[in-house]
Amino acid sequence: MKFAINESLLKELKYDSKGLIPAIVQDADKNDILMMAWMDEEALRRTLNVGEMVFWSRSRKEYWHKGDTSGNVMEVVEWFVDCDADVLLFKVHMHGPQVACHTGARSCFFRKG
Amino acid sequence: MKFAINESLLKELKYDSKGLIPAIVQDADKNDILMMAWMDEEALRRTLNVGEMVFWSRSRKEYWHKGDTSGNVMEVVEWFVDCDADVLLFKVHMHGPQVACHTGARSCFFRKG
Repeated sequence: MKFAINESLLKELKYDSKGLIPAIVQDADKNDILMMAWMDEEALRRTLNVGEMVFWSRSRKEYWHKGDTSGNVMEVVEWFVDCDADVLLFKVHMHGPQVACHTGARSCFFRKG
Repeated sequence: MKFAINESLLKELKYDSKGLIPAIVQDADKNDILMMAWMDEEALRRTLNVGEMVFWSRSRKEYWHKGDTSGNVMEVVEWFVDCDADVLLFKVHMHGPQVACHTGARSCFFRKG
């Protein structure tokens, strides 16, 4: 699903000193947390324009359309801004192999503390 | 619930340039995301020692035992480290008024994008 961009909401967002904001990704049906990654404003605009998760890769220093190599495209169902406008939450449907993590796990949060 | 500290796991954690790591808080029963805040190593140790969420407040520059003023203590049920060891997830039971957000909302993620 593509999203109309609410420019006034986007202007409110507070990015960190590197121009990034955390994006939490939650499965829209099962409600488990799949991953957290980072977006700059352009990654957020790309995400909303295409309706699929696009991050900024801090290690590769490039935009990262989730699923391009893995097939694990994440379709955005709805998204939220937190009270302080410095964290984003995306509820998604995973396409492909239902694997969010590069290790092959469904969720990146598989290591119990 | 208090947690035994797994020192080798704690050593693996990757903090940012300010010594902080994001901590996502999820309701253990309803599975909604309540908030995201930040911890340094000491805040994490305090959280595990007391079994309740303790953050580092970036604005007040002090440790912040969630619920001290609001009554909204968050009891940790289980916690997870992500694959890259740079994000934490805590599943909690909220005590008191069931309000995680300083605005009075249950969750900080109440603004739909």
